[in-house]
Amino acid sequence: MKALVYHGPGQKSLDERPLPVIQQPTDAIVRITKTTICGTDLHILKGDVPTCKPGTILGHEGVGVVNAVGPGVSTFKAGDRVLISCITACGRCEYCRKGMFSHCTTGGWILGNSIDGTQAEYVRIPHADTSLHPLPAGLESAEEDALVMLSDILPTGFECGVLNGKVQPGTSVAIVGSGPIGLAALLTAQLYSPAEIIMIDLDDNRLAVGKRFGATATINSADGTAAQQVMALTGGRGVDTAIEAVGIPATFELCQDIVAPGGTIANVGVHGIKADLHLERLWSHNITITTRLVDTVSTPMLLKTVQSKRIAAAQLVTHHFRFDEFLAAYDTFSRAADTHALKVIIEAPPHGAA
Amino acid sequence: MKALVYHGPGQKSLDERPLPVIQQPTDAIVRITKTTICGTDLHILKGDVPTCKPGTILGHEGVGVVNAVGPGVSTFKAGDRVLISCITACGRCEYCRKGMFSHCTTGGWILGNSIDGTQAEYVRIPHADTSLHPLPAGLESAEEDALVMLSDILPTGFECGVLNGKVQPGTSVAIVGSGPIGLAALLTAQLYSPAEIIMIDLDDNRLAVGKRFGATATINSADGTAAQQVMALTGGRGVDTAIEAVGIPATFELCQDIVAPGGTIANVGVHGIKADLHLERLWSHNITITTRLVDTVSTPMLLKTVQSKRIAAAQLVTHHFRFDEFLAAYDTFSRAADTHALKVIIEAPPHGAA
Amino acid sequence: MKALVYHGPGQKSLDERPLPVIQQPTDAIVRITKTTICGTDLHILKGDVPTCKPGTILGHEGVGVVNAVGPGVSTFKAGDRVLISCITACGRCEYCRKGMFSHCTTGGWILGNSIDGTQAEYVRIPHADTSLHPLPAGLESAEEDALVMLSDILPTGFECGVLNGKVQPGTSVAIVGSGPIGLAALLTAQLYSPAEIIMIDLDDNRLAVGKRFGATATINSADGTAAQQVMALTGGRGVDTAIEAVGIPATFELCQDIVAPGGTIANVGVHGIKADLHLERLWSHNITITTRLVDTVSTPMLLKTVQSKRIAAAQLVTHHFRFDEFLAAYDTFSRAADTHALKVIIEAPPHGAA
Amino acid sequence: MKALVYHGPGQKSLDERPLPVIQQPTDAIVRITKTTICGTDLHILKGDVPTCKPGTILGHEGVGVVNAVGPGVSTFKAGDRVLISCITACGRCEYCRKGMFSHCTTGGWILGNSIDGTQAEYVRIPHADTSLHPLPAGLESAEEDALVMLSDILPTGFECGVLNGKVQPGTSVAIVGSGPIGLAALLTAQLYSPAEIIMIDLDDNRLAVGKRFGATATINSADGTAAQQVMALTGGRGVDTAIEAVGIPATFELCQDIVAPGGTIANVGVHGIKADLHLERLWSHNITITTRLVDTVSTPMLLKTVQSKRIAAAQLVTHHFRFDEFLAAYDTFSRAADTHALKVIIEAPPHGAA
Repeated sequence: MKALVYHGPGQKSLDERPLPVIQQPTDAIVRITKTTICGTDLHILKGDVPTCKPGTILGHEGVGVVNAVGPGVSTFKAGDRVLISCITACGRCEYCRKGMFSHCTTGGWILGNSIDGTQAEYVRIPHADTSLHPLPAGLESAEEDALVMLSDILPTGFECGVLNGKVQPGTSVAIVGSGPIGLAALLTAQLYSPAEIIMIDLDDNRLAVGKRFGATATINSADGTAAQQVMALTGGRGVDTAIEAVGIPATFELCQDIVAPGGTIANVGVHGIKADLHLERLWSHNITITTRLVDTVSTPMLLKTVQSKRIAAAQLVTHHFRFDEFLAAYDTFSRAADTHALKVIIEAPPHGAA
Repeated sequence: MKALVYHGPGQKSLDERPLPVIQQPTDAIVRITKTTICGTDLHILKGDVPTCKPGTILGHEGVGVVNAVGPGVSTFKAGDRVLISCITACGRCEYCRKGMFSHCTTGGWILGNSIDGTQAEYVRIPHADTSLHPLPAGLESAEEDALVMLSDILPTGFECGVLNGKVQPGTSVAIVGSGPIGLAALLTAQLYSPAEIIMIDLDDNRLAVGKRFGATATINSADGTAAQQVMALTGGRGVDTAIEAVGIPATFELCQDIVAPGGTIANVGVHGIKADLHLERLWSHNITITTRLVDTVSTPMLLKTVQSKRIAAAQLVTHHFRFDEFLAAYDTFSRAADTHALKVIIEAPPHGAA
Repeated sequence: MKALVYHGPGQKSLDERPLPVIQQPTDAIVRITKTTICGTDLHILKGDVPTCKPGTILGHEGVGVVNAVGPGVSTFKAGDRVLISCITACGRCEYCRKGMFSHCTTGGWILGNSIDGTQAEYVRIPHADTSLHPLPAGLESAEEDALVMLSDILPTGFECGVLNGKVQPGTSVAIVGSGPIGLAALLTAQLYSPAEIIMIDLDDNRLAVGKRFGATATINSADGTAAQQVMALTGGRGVDTAIEAVGIPATFELCQDIVAPGGTIANVGVHGIKADLHLERLWSHNITITTRLVDTVSTPMLLKTVQSKRIAAAQLVTHHFRFDEFLAAYDTFSRAADTHALKVIIEAPPHGAA
Repeated sequence: MKALVYHGPGQKSLDERPLPVIQQPTDAIVRITKTTICGTDLHILKGDVPTCKPGTILGHEGVGVVNAVGPGVSTFKAGDRVLISCITACGRCEYCRKGMFSHCTTGGWILGNSIDGTQAEYVRIPHADTSLHPLPAGLESAEEDALVMLSDILPTGFECGVLNGKVQPGTSVAIVGSGPIGLAALLTAQLYSPAEIIMIDLDDNRLAVGKRFGATATINSADGTAAQQVMALTGGRGVDTAIEAVGIPATFELCQDIVAPGGTIANVGVHGIKADLHLERLWSHNITITTRLVDTVSTPMLLKTVQSKRIAAAQLVTHHFRFDEFLAAYDTFSRAADTHALKVIIEAPPHGAA
């Protein structure tokens, strides 16, 4: 089969690889129909993720069709259409019992990281019963695109940003970073009807997208006055929820400047270095800071919400590619400032046609 | 009347001052029967609290008897025995309506800070209806001592440490700092029956007190192996709740080293400088960090709990002084390492005797 | 002044009454600009509310302008535009401290019940600081209409139905009763983006209104198959939240038939007689049943939400009357099946014109 | 092997039965070392539980040693000591994902009900990975007795009574019914340090046990004044939590009489007929009523709590029997008023000795 393989920092290629096989009774093999590329894949290609060894097939998102299941799989059978969760969960370790699938002792984020991933024609999914979600048959292509957003980006924005940030009806929210993950937080924040959602970014195009996706205000932070502007918009109080969706010290500091007393900073960004925490000011500010690797516990709920049209997830998809255009897809996605790419969909050829 | 007055950094004296008078319809004047000294008073004396101007009477804790009330006070009348909350709350601003009394727009921590405090024979209490708590008559002296602990130290340990830290039955807790405030967290944490409570400090005497107050293990962190020891005690996972009760970067970093995935760092300490936050490691660790200036919303509950003997609060009191020995009380409290002082009680002479 | 006065079962008239005066330091006198009629007023007129004595001015809803305040009122002054809460709260008793204003020991639902109410040119509001809400100046008339819905009906639907019923993104909701209060629950339920909201009623017109207000399905329960229809719509599971908005045993039983395992029955209806609770079936069903007299703790949040256009509250208003048409307003409201009235607004003449 | 078999209403015997065998990949076979009898077993013997067919081995509680596992079991292996949960959970259906194991679509309460149970030398446990809990080796016999209480009675008292009843530090609790299940609620309620726990029963011996187990007051309800006595003990307010641990209309009505505004009635009892719900009084009382079949989600936490000696569970065990005395054990347990039995332990002979 064809697969997008990581060959060390800066190196990837679309290679021919053997089909994956069942290794454990609880495994399933899934034929991928649609997959996508995540910012984390770019991190791996920079060499920032040491757990991902050269030779690994990348990717942790996608929808497909079950091809085979091990004898311990009882929920799915060959032919079932499924959504693949970016997080693999055994469903029985101490962390899984608490709903903290991201820290599953034999799972977590392993797809396209410590084991082969979804940017291939077929993928092996461990703990299939608790790591796949059933999909209805007969979806239109745009609906399937929307569902790919449920593998990672929507639950990440929702769980790490919206749920951890305690967004509630009538509250005020600022989202620092209007890239795909910040926009996923923006879309899912609206499930709770906050009174204000302020998007903050350096890129006017991304802010315009934010406005279209439901932001009540946008701020270009290039001139260094973002904090003052947030204060002006919130009557001097700051926001109840500040969602950090970038992953650098400067944006995390901005969150500290704009969070109201009693508010929450919900970190979503992947950070490479430490940040300053201004406890000399914040110790008496009654604030909460949260971090989280997505657990994908909210995926069944988000599925219902996407299906009942409460979230227009398909609008996150800006570009489509065929499987043999995978390198072009990476190119488009990695030059987002120029291409205005949010999420790109890579589609397998119709089954039987390959 | 006699009052302990702050005269600028390093300077205090027991002065003669005029009796306080009703200034607002919602004020009460309370005759103090017992008061105490807080670590924060020592901070003021170091010059660390710019809101406290020279000439201010110190103190924000105490029990007493209502002497007079303004026309807008309906809950209390002269002669009522009362507990004074360290936090003044109007009960009607946006913050008070959320139970965030610490940020009351016309109150908060003002006693012994921006207005005269409780280390005096009489004190004016603004917003008396919502800043005092009724006490039963006929208490024994040791019971009154225990109630003085409800002005600040017990609600602070409980709200900032135990509630924010989400201590629950069966969880594991580490408290970094076994001084009065850490011990208050230790006493109140036991209301939720955690499986383990580990006290960490540099002072063996304080650790011995911690053991006596209910810690399941103690660690002297002097040798730099505290984090390893906590990991060994928790099967390598770390603790569900790490309570920071010191207020310096080193102890806040230790909390980051020992918090389990999914756990909480509850900051209680008063910090003078910023600390490093290791987001490069913690971003995916699913942790929560909280800060809080005590709101004293839990005081009515803690009062019931002290009265039903679920918390033996009186054991926090190590020394007693008469009002005219106030400077000696400060001396004993400020040399705690030598004197083994936890909390000191300063008692007014029996009424009529002065 | 003119006032609508209750004169015993079945008897009311628009009488001339003396202006109300400040009785307590915490009172305010409010000049009413808009008020409305509640189903509860009709209950009083049937003689069902023994706490309401003949001679009482009815009404517990409205917006107006502060005319005078007592010396203990600090939040409002003459000339302020205000929303009147149907619940009077002292803000300092044990119940108020818990946010349970409905059971305030010196307040609760007293307006138009045990003291004179808002269906008058002026009304005395006890505990004004904590029983009124500030309004912006310069609102249009339709916006003011919307705000009258915040005195009672919207917080009632929201607190008793939506909050108690734990409506959340992706859940399923059935609302039994599509009258004004059921519709208020329907409007506010959408703040949480449930996947399904099923309205159930006997009146096709009211169901059509429900559909227009956002219901995803409607069921006319006249033929006795409502429970089966709900089961069919929910894959045989039943609903996560069943909101009872009628107040009779039959509708409460229907809720027991349609609630899913793990679900909640949130009672909003005012019941005159007991109902059967089928514990022989429900004991193992993991359900929750809640009752509540509205506390109006959510009013500040709902105000923000109405102002940010997340709830189109004005659409609840179907008819307008002048103050001198008050009896006609009662007639229209009480014959809702014929008149299709939801809420009626009664407006005072422009100030200075009377 | 020997097994206690139900033969229809009123009929049981200790029979010779074939050893159970693995039927599904996820099954385990457990050799029972200790088991016990539940009030529910007596219900079955009365013929009240139609899902339990004649020929079924009774019992859903016990500890033992794993004898064999199917190929799909990964957490346990032969020789492991285990606690058996009374609830079988697949860990992957929609209910299990919500922690509502009691409604697992292929599990729930099936042991000793729809499939053979634990009152036998060996038992087959479906979904073993998520229905067993690992135990430490080397426990003393009394410690093992305590752990048998974790199969059903302690999680039932805790989840259905204490958690659903929202027992918290400083609150007041009444438990109606001082039998084994009420006493389990009493023991586990103390994990949250309520200020008052009032036990109510008709049997003075059981009330004396309640007092010994930590009740702060006891009431014999025989004279019909229980409600008045509770009101007197709570300053006229009633209790924050009323736990129904009997299962008849009269005790459920008593709970309605003693619950405070804002309080919760947590039903634990198994009811055979409907009860009256006094909505004509309670609609405005802001109360919550909950029902629940135990989910045993709290078992890992309770295990830690029993092991850290926060609950003295062994004191629930009043009698011991050998396996060949099983009928005598039933006789003693079923005549509890005379024998003062709470829970009886039936022990298998030492392995190898049979």
